[in-house]
Amino acid sequence: MAQKKQTFVIIGLGLIGGSLAGAIRKHFRAARVIAVSRSSQKIAFAKKKRLIHEGFTALRSALSEADLVFVCSPVDSIPKLISEVDRYAPKGTVVSDVGSTKGEIVRWSDRRRFRHIEFVGSHPLAGSHLRGLRHVKADLFEKAFVFVTPSRKTARRAASVVSRFWKRLRASVQVLSPEAHDELVSEVSHLPHAVASALVNQTSVKSLQFASSGFLDTTRVAQGDPALWVPIFLTNRAHLLARLKRLEGELKRLTSALKRRSGSSIRNFLKTASTKRSRL
Amino acid sequence: MAQKKQTFVIIGLGLIGGSLAGAIRKHFRAARVIAVSRSSQKIAFAKKKRLIHEGFTALRSALSEADLVFVCSPVDSIPKLISEVDRYAPKGTVVSDVGSTKGEIVRWSDRRRFRHIEFVGSHPLAGSHLRGLRHVKADLFEKAFVFVTPSRKTARRAASVVSRFWKRLRASVQVLSPEAHDELVSEVSHLPHAVASALVNQTSVKSLQFASSGFLDTTRVAQGDPALWVPIFLTNRAHLLARLKRLEGELKRLTSALKRRSGSSIRNFLKTASTKRSRL
Repeated sequence: MAQKKQTFVIIGLGLIGGSLAGAIRKHFRAARVIAVSRSSQKIAFAKKKRLIHEGFTALRSALSEADLVFVCSPVDSIPKLISEVDRYAPKGTVVSDVGSTKGEIVRWSDRRRFRHIEFVGSHPLAGSHLRGLRHVKADLFEKAFVFVTPSRKTARRAASVVSRFWKRLRASVQVLSPEAHDELVSEVSHLPHAVASALVNQTSVKSLQFASSGFLDTTRVAQGDPALWVPIFLTNRAHLLARLKRLEGELKRLTSALKRRSGSSIRNFLKTASTKRSRL
Repeated sequence: MAQKKQTFVIIGLGLIGGSLAGAIRKHFRAARVIAVSRSSQKIAFAKKKRLIHEGFTALRSALSEADLVFVCSPVDSIPKLISEVDRYAPKGTVVSDVGSTKGEIVRWSDRRRFRHIEFVGSHPLAGSHLRGLRHVKADLFEKAFVFVTPSRKTARRAASVVSRFWKRLRASVQVLSPEAHDELVSEVSHLPHAVASALVNQTSVKSLQFASSGFLDTTRVAQGDPALWVPIFLTNRAHLLARLKRLEGELKRLTSALKRRSGSSIRNFLKTASTKRSRL
């Protein structure tokens, strides 16, 4: 008897969902890739681009053969979708997500009693300010960091299946607690996004015409889709608030040095940053 | 009688001085390019790369035939160098600089009575966090904005000679008052530099290993040489302080929205930035 083909279900066809589909096609040649999207246009486009084998606008229809499901939708829509997957998926289906914050979703899933699925959170530190299927890259996750964030209640099998999955996509898998993850990304991703946005907001439209490469680099991430970023900020608010406070401290240090016209204090401020940044 | 060759003197062989020499060689094929640097190694390298015809370690020796002199050294060393050029240059020599702040230097030159030279400030909004002659680009100024910043006391001839010079290098020349210039660059260059540095400073070394493309873009300018940036910050401190205050206001707006868990306020904050930035 022929073995059943491995079936992956991707819920949400944005940049990450589409790239994930493409990556699975590339690295799991024998597997079947099914997508769920509210947009039949996106499904048609993803089929045409050979990112997926099949697509559905209704979740239920997509899940009958599912082995591994990835929810690739904005952070605030993930719990509802996982609950739905649990209703329709075969017993033993492993489910993960790709949301940028992990504390809330993992605490939520720890409180739930799933009937059919085992959930573990993950988060690929990959992506772009570019949105949508047009910018899909099948190699988006190669060499990228991917966090897998089991809690004490997470089924070990799910954590190991999902870790192995990302490794097969050539990602550098990092296992972290949801809390440690959220603190880390508040530092290296959410605060930079907040600060880049504040920089753009404080600049007059007239001055923006003289934005040079430095300004453009510094503010690139501010182009991100607010619909994705509002729930990220809300679900990571405590860490982000702590980081904003720290940043305020740094800026106060500089302000005070400028007020005192202290060349040596300004130098310390800039030198620490320059040395640290040049090492990356 | 053969016409005397036009002679350009570049003082300082860093990224900007070297690129300027290269650009003159490219766009003024008949002219003579002379450099002044304390480093005979740099002079030898610049000769080998055909950026300059000749180089001197002593200013005086370089100036006897000078028509147009560019001081390409850190902001705080410019006045002293201009004074020296005034001592040794032929009567009528036009002098400019490429410093990132213009208020202090122009106010200083307005107070001076030069014996031989006519000075006008300029500032090419070009460059890089990469330093030194190795990264020289002869097309660095093509399509770049270059500010020429005459005051009421600036000799018109000098302003027009220097404007024409930059146009011949294919730069987009913008004539602005020194004050308006300094306010503008505090917005689009100095504040972003300060903020990028603060971001790096607040990030733990452990977390930095997970810096992704977003973080790297946002903080790229922080690599800049503190020896250049300390005098820039000091000579533009009033504008930079005003900008830091404005940025603090923006960050407070976000902090308050997060504390109130106000999705709509966070959305406003991010949406304004995303729309404005995406237009660039």
